[in-house]
Amino acid sequence: MLDRIYIDNIIKTALAEDINYIDVTTDNLIDDDHESVAYLVAKDSGVLCGIDIAARVFDFLGGKLKKEIFLKDGSRVKSGDVIANFKGSTKTLLKGERTALNILQHMSGIATATRECVKLTKGTNAVITDTRKTLPGLRALQKYAVTVGGGRNHRFNLSDGAMLKDNHIDAYGSITAAVNALRKKCGHMCKAEVEVRNFDELNEALECGCEIIMLDNMTPDDMALAVKLTNRRAKLEASGNITLANIREVALTGVDIISLGALTHSVKCFDISMRIKSSEV
Amino acid sequence: MLDRIYIDNIIKTALAEDINYIDVTTDNLIDDDHESVAYLVAKDSGVLCGIDIAARVFDFLGGKLKKEIFLKDGSRVKSGDVIANFKGSTKTLLKGERTALNILQHMSGIATATRECVKLTKGTNAVITDTRKTLPGLRALQKYAVTVGGGRNHRFNLSDGAMLKDNHIDAYGSITAAVNALRKKCGHMCKAEVEVRNFDELNEALECGCEIIMLDNMTPDDMALAVKLTNRRAKLEASGNITLANIREVALTGVDIISLGALTHSVKCFDISMRIKSSEV
Amino acid sequence: MLDRIYIDNIIKTALAEDINYIDVTTDNLIDDDHESVAYLVAKDSGVLCGIDIAARVFDFLGGKLKKEIFLKDGSRVKSGDVIANFKGSTKTLLKGERTALNILQHMSGIATATRECVKLTKGTNAVITDTRKTLPGLRALQKYAVTVGGGRNHRFNLSDGAMLKDNHIDAYGSITAAVNALRKKCGHMCKAEVEVRNFDELNEALECGCEIIMLDNMTPDDMALAVKLTNRRAKLEASGNITLANIREVALTGVDIISLGALTHSVKCFDISMRIKSSEV
Amino acid sequence: MLDRIYIDNIIKTALAEDINYIDVTTDNLIDDDHESVAYLVAKDSGVLCGIDIAARVFDFLGGKLKKEIFLKDGSRVKSGDVIANFKGSTKTLLKGERTALNILQHMSGIATATRECVKLTKGTNAVITDTRKTLPGLRALQKYAVTVGGGRNHRFNLSDGAMLKDNHIDAYGSITAAVNALRKKCGHMCKAEVEVRNFDELNEALECGCEIIMLDNMTPDDMALAVKLTNRRAKLEASGNITLANIREVALTGVDIISLGALTHSVKCFDISMRIKSSEV
Amino acid sequence: MLDRIYIDNIIKTALAEDINYIDVTTDNLIDDDHESVAYLVAKDSGVLCGIDIAARVFDFLGGKLKKEIFLKDGSRVKSGDVIANFKGSTKTLLKGERTALNILQHMSGIATATRECVKLTKGTNAVITDTRKTLPGLRALQKYAVTVGGGRNHRFNLSDGAMLKDNHIDAYGSITAAVNALRKKCGHMCKAEVEVRNFDELNEALECGCEIIMLDNMTPDDMALAVKLTNRRAKLEASGNITLANIREVALTGVDIISLGALTHSVKCFDISMRIKSSEV
Amino acid sequence: MLDRIYIDNIIKTALAEDINYIDVTTDNLIDDDHESVAYLVAKDSGVLCGIDIAARVFDFLGGKLKKEIFLKDGSRVKSGDVIANFKGSTKTLLKGERTALNILQHMSGIATATRECVKLTKGTNAVITDTRKTLPGLRALQKYAVTVGGGRNHRFNLSDGAMLKDNHIDAYGSITAAVNALRKKCGHMCKAEVEVRNFDELNEALECGCEIIMLDNMTPDDMALAVKLTNRRAKLEASGNITLANIREVALTGVDIISLGALTHSVKCFDISMRIKSSEV
Repeated sequence: MLDRIYIDNIIKTALAEDINYIDVTTDNLIDDDHESVAYLVAKDSGVLCGIDIAARVFDFLGGKLKKEIFLKDGSRVKSGDVIANFKGSTKTLLKGERTALNILQHMSGIATATRECVKLTKGTNAVITDTRKTLPGLRALQKYAVTVGGGRNHRFNLSDGAMLKDNHIDAYGSITAAVNALRKKCGHMCKAEVEVRNFDELNEALECGCEIIMLDNMTPDDMALAVKLTNRRAKLEASGNITLANIREVALTGVDIISLGALTHSVKCFDISMRIKSSEV
Repeated sequence: MLDRIYIDNIIKTALAEDINYIDVTTDNLIDDDHESVAYLVAKDSGVLCGIDIAARVFDFLGGKLKKEIFLKDGSRVKSGDVIANFKGSTKTLLKGERTALNILQHMSGIATATRECVKLTKGTNAVITDTRKTLPGLRALQKYAVTVGGGRNHRFNLSDGAMLKDNHIDAYGSITAAVNALRKKCGHMCKAEVEVRNFDELNEALECGCEIIMLDNMTPDDMALAVKLTNRRAKLEASGNITLANIREVALTGVDIISLGALTHSVKCFDISMRIKSSEV
Repeated sequence: MLDRIYIDNIIKTALAEDINYIDVTTDNLIDDDHESVAYLVAKDSGVLCGIDIAARVFDFLGGKLKKEIFLKDGSRVKSGDVIANFKGSTKTLLKGERTALNILQHMSGIATATRECVKLTKGTNAVITDTRKTLPGLRALQKYAVTVGGGRNHRFNLSDGAMLKDNHIDAYGSITAAVNALRKKCGHMCKAEVEVRNFDELNEALECGCEIIMLDNMTPDDMALAVKLTNRRAKLEASGNITLANIREVALTGVDIISLGALTHSVKCFDISMRIKSSEV
Repeated sequence: MLDRIYIDNIIKTALAEDINYIDVTTDNLIDDDHESVAYLVAKDSGVLCGIDIAARVFDFLGGKLKKEIFLKDGSRVKSGDVIANFKGSTKTLLKGERTALNILQHMSGIATATRECVKLTKGTNAVITDTRKTLPGLRALQKYAVTVGGGRNHRFNLSDGAMLKDNHIDAYGSITAAVNALRKKCGHMCKAEVEVRNFDELNEALECGCEIIMLDNMTPDDMALAVKLTNRRAKLEASGNITLANIREVALTGVDIISLGALTHSVKCFDISMRIKSSEV
Repeated sequence: MLDRIYIDNIIKTALAEDINYIDVTTDNLIDDDHESVAYLVAKDSGVLCGIDIAARVFDFLGGKLKKEIFLKDGSRVKSGDVIANFKGSTKTLLKGERTALNILQHMSGIATATRECVKLTKGTNAVITDTRKTLPGLRALQKYAVTVGGGRNHRFNLSDGAMLKDNHIDAYGSITAAVNALRKKCGHMCKAEVEVRNFDELNEALECGCEIIMLDNMTPDDMALAVKLTNRRAKLEASGNITLANIREVALTGVDIISLGALTHSVKCFDISMRIKSSEV
Repeated sequence: MLDRIYIDNIIKTALAEDINYIDVTTDNLIDDDHESVAYLVAKDSGVLCGIDIAARVFDFLGGKLKKEIFLKDGSRVKSGDVIANFKGSTKTLLKGERTALNILQHMSGIATATRECVKLTKGTNAVITDTRKTLPGLRALQKYAVTVGGGRNHRFNLSDGAMLKDNHIDAYGSITAAVNALRKKCGHMCKAEVEVRNFDELNEALECGCEIIMLDNMTPDDMALAVKLTNRRAKLEASGNITLANIREVALTGVDIISLGALTHSVKCFDISMRIKSSEV
């Protein structure tokens, strides 16, 4: 699970946004000592992600809850599965419900989509990775969800890995010049990846010893050729316009890495509901 | 446009997340006085949203840019349209690119989807509204994008409107009791909406003078009947499982409001690219 | 009680402001294991408000306290009443004393003044409400205290209700034009109130179906006439220059709502002392 | 004026609290390029305080304003005096109005009350000071306003001066023991004040060389006797239950300092209005 | 110990800086329920400082630890001494190790250096104090460590004591004029110190009754003369270019206070290691 | 230069810490329109670092300054060199002086020490790098200063590179097992380094294809042997107990990287003074 120094800020921001001053309905109608049980129930099939964070939401809302979590992050769930139940203050449950679900559904949506991609590329060389195409303030949640779905993380930010794009290369005259310039400045823990648009660039990148090369918007045929030319001298990343429809074709070209912005920039929320029953306490 | 007291915090969070310490590629390779022009170009058809926020991103990255914005929020764009260009420090442009696009694409995605719903319900009584099913920390951005797309905002948070759900009603014995209890506590600027699951509840809500009633997961046939029964004594909101496929059918029942969580919880990003050219400065 | 996500920030700000680095007296003179009992005692008659927040202050100051709270928010207290006692670390008690009292006395002062207004308008149609004339950062504390004193809350902020003032109306040519423009943009949960300065404006507001109308700085005679003219077609709010001296006269005109800025912008603190006795532990 | 590192946080908090998401009235009705002039006008007689902070509020709301400030902090104003005018975006003016006035009226209220106390003690030895009885988050604003009104500041927080109260003394057995313990720990820039409740304690405090002594809740007669006994060996502070009615009597006893919690804990706001005219631009 | 309202922010900042998203090594390799014992062991001789803060670090990292702290702040330690042991989640221990040590080593380094200065001035009149030459955001930690080492604190910030330097004096024409101007404005809890560069200035400062005078960069001989001239009419502070080599010579001149920027601006970290053993659980 | 999103927070924290409420000396004595020139002058020989950040400090203190910066980060300076001058409000200059110098002296101290190490290892294979042994909240400032001095950065945090230490290895049974486990989880941009304590571990690390290996506290003789054994199959990092006295000996062993905690945990501030002259304006 992600550390609380990170998670708690997101939860507090989300709760402040959702409650602001008071819950005008719940605070005015429900007694402090009224108790209920809430059941988190999956309404679709997929991969669960974010359950500890969802459960944590309620810790900021006063009443103590007794929490039972039946399924952990990474569990495959199907419609009707009971994920967890929380017992205690009805006020706390009602005020945290929306925030908890918003987080849980978003993260499970990412994990589920990632797993789908992993399954579609089974048996190939390719691993699935995310990108920096994430939503403001949510990168860690989103990248964590990708790993829960079986994917891997590309660089987290602009500090922790170098990525030479055409603009960087243009400013230096050539891939070789840019790569050499970077090698003189970066520390030994910093990996560099070079983006290439054609076979000339690929050859230049390979010749100056680049370890990771991104094939930008190439066709599967060109990718296959690039894999052949490279002959394992570098890792190759396929990127751009990859969808569920063509991901297997891309993977079969032999590339090492397939990165998909859609995993985090176009998330379909995974449906989970929270049923609150006061009669069962 | 949303106020800067709000926007600037989101931008700073996103930049801190994306840059952290330095842009190891750009800061090491590009000179401080290197200049370029960046063009924001639409790659799909839809509604633009967030352009002022995207432009604002670069103000936090040192170099002064000369900005020309050709299309405003709410503009319909089609693939190839040039939205804006920014001229100045290449470093500033490269370091802000991803963050600006992440925001712009997400907001334009929401505005585009909303416009789609508005178009599909044209000629009916129904207005399209959002819900509280938003992403942590992004509610204002998302709700603003819904209005840019032609939709309207449901309540912003739990403070600014009351919504009686089954759990509130159960705790009070009846809709009537809950509504009356609320009337004794709420101020005159606070609207209340009641969620009903069947016609008995609808009748009770109407009898105790509720002005807004949500029909929870009803079939279109039941909605049409509800509209008839209500006979304009209250506004009716349709909610639950509404998609592009059935939205017109729902709208034709005569309901006043259609709310869709998907507008904000399952956003498909709208494709916009930023082309940076140093040769043109 | 207000949620901790809100309260804790105010308490931490207040403590940081009051302590800064160390309590140079207490930290240098009192041993960590020295214990005392602190009694919160009312020194005047009024309505208690903020006791849970005052008690919460000490949770941020290290030593565990055993807390007994005898009187809850909303209790009527008279001079000499013991509100609560806190037993434990003398250092914790001494360092939190001023911050706890500053909050408790301010909130109780608001609740007491509100109750006074409620009592003076007893038997009339009018409810007492607050305004946006609050102190920076303290709006939720202040608005909550108004409800504890028996008043109601006007809109919390500029987002959660529309209020058409003369400047808005001037910009649109007429009340009717402004109201219609707003109706085309606002969601169904957003109430609108119109401020009128004379009977022509009142008539126009009524004719275009405004539900809530503010009578700005009218004399009681004019208010009574406005009530008659309105004939329950809309709720009427009296505002401006209302004091304890004239509030009953205003209420007797038949207006529905009386709003008073003084409840929150000119608070007289309610006297409560904290007596710390080490001998009793 | 107070530094912006301090002021800007308070302003941003206040604006976020007052606007939240959008100004549903102004943002929906007023065009971005609509302009007006706003006049700040005093509606009472007193001392102005906070004008630079009030003017600063609008800098966070987008539109550029042309500001003319005619009266500075510390100016005596009377009803009808024009304090400043701000010309520019009507949206900016309307959205900042309430926040600017809330701050300006509160600070001017404090400065005005302080000046009243200074005037009442004219010709005596006594200076007027504030206390730590301030409102959460507003201590600097409030203490600054006291100085603008002609008063002086007591210690700002628990770090910057020692204050021996009965609890500290009890824990050490005697004033002498506590004072000596403190002298061994405090730095040379830290002043210490001792609170005494009777003449025995006063004598002990004088004998151990205390430079500042607070006479806690003494009658004016006892204060006069204390002044005589002290014979300028220490500064004497009168504190507790001092009001406009008895402040001159207290000052005439010869005490050096009179501190009043009411200056900051029971502020009466000073009436200033903002008149916005679009016709004059 | 410093209050948690202060400490916790520093710890959270440090952890966020050190962990960012995940601990890619520990989070991927160590099981949640893997347990170890960690021993904090001194590797040099000196004064321990910051142990409670170091122990607090782990509270933000999920797993509960059983903590035994054998040595408190202020303890003299020698190489090999076991300071504390923490038993529990290996993940928690590994993720907090660096942050805890960074704080503990820095604070112990300051306390150790201060104690060295105190020892070197033993038997003289002089007390050792710090300055405002501290590191951004760490002033309270650093000043606390100075007191733990036996030194005292100079003013904490620019608010809590006045210090007249040559620029202030130049702007007023003379020491006398500046001192008198200040006396008319400052509250009774605010001490003032005057910086003098020669005997004329010293005489002027003494004549206008200054209580504390700083001798700026004087030679020991001049300091001794200044002590003689002053004849206990004021406290004298020696400042500027004082090192371990000359501190005793300075102290023997009879000055009351010796302040050293190096205590906080040039800290040598004190070596403490954390040995984590999983076999012993 | 580091980005302002990062720098501004550190500056604001430092100013709030140093000023708190007011500068009781400067704010009471210096007129708002009093102007001076401030000269930043080196008082020692070394490498300048942080000048843009130091200049930025004054932007938060009101008065506009005209700034001339003569020497950039990385410049070699000697005693007497004028680094920059700032002309304008005396108040602004006096209030920012200490904060600006504290930052500038700390960063220049780090750059100077790093350059010293770089010079001592000239002609060898070794590059100088920092560690995670930094001060809370200052890591980016410190790591940037290392690069300005000619060193390189080790990983910035626990997210952006894996480092297998003995505890990780013990938990997995062997280096090989741990390395393989990590390879299955990490993304392609994440480098891994393995810490070895003897030649058996070195051999195992080499055999499982580790690219970077840290030689933990080895003697120079053992390092030389390790270099020979490795035969360029991996990069070798020397770490532990490396000082100015032995750094050249270590470098001559042929290791690729020498990392020193002392560069950031035991910084000697570099002496720079600010001379403020009002006569020259």
